[in-house]
Amino acid sequence: MSRTLDEVRALDGADPLSGFRDRFVLPEGVIYLDGNSLGALPRAAIGRQRALIEEEWGSELIRSWNTRGWIEAPQRVGAKIAPLIGAKPNEVIVADSTSVNLFKLIVAAVLLSDRPSLLTEAGNFHTDLHIASGAAELTGLRLDIAPRAEVEARIGSDTNLLLLTHVHYKTADRFDMAAVTGRAKAAGALTLWDLSHSAGAVPLDLNRDGAELAVGCGYKYLNGGPGAPAFLYVAEPLQDRLVSPLRGWMGHAEPFAFTDDYRPAPGIDRFLAGTPPMLSLAALESGVESFGDTGMDVIWAKSVMLFDLFADLVEEHCPALACISPRDPERRGSHVSFRHPNAFEICQALIADGVIGDFRAPDVLRFGLTPLYLRFEDVWDAVRRMRAILGSGRWRDPRFAVRGKVT
Amino acid sequence: MSRTLDEVRALDGADPLSGFRDRFVLPEGVIYLDGNSLGALPRAAIGRQRALIEEEWGSELIRSWNTRGWIEAPQRVGAKIAPLIGAKPNEVIVADSTSVNLFKLIVAAVLLSDRPSLLTEAGNFHTDLHIASGAAELTGLRLDIAPRAEVEARIGSDTNLLLLTHVHYKTADRFDMAAVTGRAKAAGALTLWDLSHSAGAVPLDLNRDGAELAVGCGYKYLNGGPGAPAFLYVAEPLQDRLVSPLRGWMGHAEPFAFTDDYRPAPGIDRFLAGTPPMLSLAALESGVESFGDTGMDVIWAKSVMLFDLFADLVEEHCPALACISPRDPERRGSHVSFRHPNAFEICQALIADGVIGDFRAPDVLRFGLTPLYLRFEDVWDAVRRMRAILGSGRWRDPRFAVRGKVT
Repeated sequence: MSRTLDEVRALDGADPLSGFRDRFVLPEGVIYLDGNSLGALPRAAIGRQRALIEEEWGSELIRSWNTRGWIEAPQRVGAKIAPLIGAKPNEVIVADSTSVNLFKLIVAAVLLSDRPSLLTEAGNFHTDLHIASGAAELTGLRLDIAPRAEVEARIGSDTNLLLLTHVHYKTADRFDMAAVTGRAKAAGALTLWDLSHSAGAVPLDLNRDGAELAVGCGYKYLNGGPGAPAFLYVAEPLQDRLVSPLRGWMGHAEPFAFTDDYRPAPGIDRFLAGTPPMLSLAALESGVESFGDTGMDVIWAKSVMLFDLFADLVEEHCPALACISPRDPERRGSHVSFRHPNAFEICQALIADGVIGDFRAPDVLRFGLTPLYLRFEDVWDAVRRMRAILGSGRWRDPRFAVRGKVT
Repeated sequence: MSRTLDEVRALDGADPLSGFRDRFVLPEGVIYLDGNSLGALPRAAIGRQRALIEEEWGSELIRSWNTRGWIEAPQRVGAKIAPLIGAKPNEVIVADSTSVNLFKLIVAAVLLSDRPSLLTEAGNFHTDLHIASGAAELTGLRLDIAPRAEVEARIGSDTNLLLLTHVHYKTADRFDMAAVTGRAKAAGALTLWDLSHSAGAVPLDLNRDGAELAVGCGYKYLNGGPGAPAFLYVAEPLQDRLVSPLRGWMGHAEPFAFTDDYRPAPGIDRFLAGTPPMLSLAALESGVESFGDTGMDVIWAKSVMLFDLFADLVEEHCPALACISPRDPERRGSHVSFRHPNAFEICQALIADGVIGDFRAPDVLRFGLTPLYLRFEDVWDAVRRMRAILGSGRWRDPRFAVRGKVT
């Protein structure tokens, strides 16, 4: 379907989220399509970090744990994430990294039953697979890694825990959370969802969908800053049945009683381990607050429109790029990916041209669609530059083939 | 031994570290004796954080992982900690929290042998005990918790791993690292040292003392900010024999190859798990850099003088406080603790008077001695105010009995 620039500008004119862009710092001349890897800086974080560092740490010092609400920050920020994922405020807490939280919940969950299999998907994000392999070895489980198309059929009476990423980091394929969780539940298995590419991106209703366990990333769509702490979700009825394998003092029933014996805190608090990283945690709070009261339905509606525009324009102007993300919005997340044998070089040429997406090995170009700060005209411009790069063959310049440590 | 204010001021006048105080933000009217709980804010951190947030995150965005050295930060900051603890630069890495790092090293270490006992000290910092209990349960070990005086005698042929905190968080009692490690080694056991109250406080030479494994805290004497990430040390010959139970992607041999199979990175890198929390990590870097090139011997010499002055003045002016820290400098860390049945209330009254120390349940008043920013006259003033509070009985005011969440 052909579109004109005027039509695209009209979409921006009618965008109910257009005012949100000003809440973020976005550099001149850059079209940022990597908010699914590192969300943009919320303007509010600048002042918040300054106050945190200069006043709270600098002047108030240790007292800030009490007087400035540091000690409650993991619960407070968790409660602010809760409405974005359809959870109760006391079901979400911010702690550690996604990897570490995966480990906590996998180990705690599999110890509830004698079933031998931890089931997951081949090509799942690799930290999920690696953490799962370590957790399985320690707990004596078998790690079963099934191709995506076979995962659901493999759920059975030997399945202890099903570990899936809700939105696939590469293709954007999305599982039907309610259906899959229900199928596992019917077979007597728990499900742990990794929401790293879902939270703040697609509509989620963990309570409605019967989700039992979940983890998610703070630095992608939640705009929490580089390496922001992650979150975890445990459905209320399960909380007191699970004990974290990482029994840190912050998850103790009385952290400041300094007793030798371990008694897990009631509820979600037991999944804390060490002292919360306040600088990173406060930035995540600013990131989550940048959503305001906007419902995920409004954000998702714009994501769908951004996706359609992007995919249509690429189909029309860059036919060498094969879209590997589902066209059906119910089956995908908020990024769009394309396959090309020279995806790496094209990605580098785009970055040099101010269009920041990313490359995922071996041959995928990936673009994050972040409705809070992306304009329809940005998509138009990005595809226009992409067409120029592909048309001219400029990506063949040898400097675009140099591989860095991170891509 | 009686001292006069003039004598105390003369100590400040002759202090080779007096210039370091200006590297830190210290609020007017406050005598900060809690740098062993949360180190003061290094002035350099203010500008560094601003640049990190506004330029690196705000403008450079995802590219900063490569262009601003984010991705190497765990190794880089680890290498800067190394000289403070007598380690090689490639033996230290910054990651996660002390609790999480304890778990990684305990589990990785005990899996090297079939011996059944994980031995530690009663009254060890409780996160160490709790993490050890979780790790022991998962690996099928027995957690043996011995009174301090019996720990060394309990090392035997059944000891798999000895887990000790080098400087005790409450009393400041210090183990002889070389002697204890040697005894464990002779019995065929590994030793894991928690350096949370040692790093940046007492002279350490892990290599000379034959230390195999260690963890430590970033937010105490290293001045890394609230909840700063922690560090871990693995002696070079052991590194490739240990596999972290937390197999996160950042510890993979090729994090960006996105492969399903786990291959640990060579060397210390394998002990990374998730994405490094850059905001907190950069503040730790500023904290470590605040030591400059000053050797730990100079810092320790001042700590010894601060301790002697503090203990002498308290003995003279506050006889109700019983010092529970060793007078022999070779046997202690860089804080001084006193017992009093009303330690809690006295601590609160001191804080109200601008003298910030801390209370450790059930009856300990604890004061951190941080030579980089503490003056001898501060100690004089602190004891003077303490004497006034004790002499007047002002601590009996009911408002000082109100217990907060953190103390």
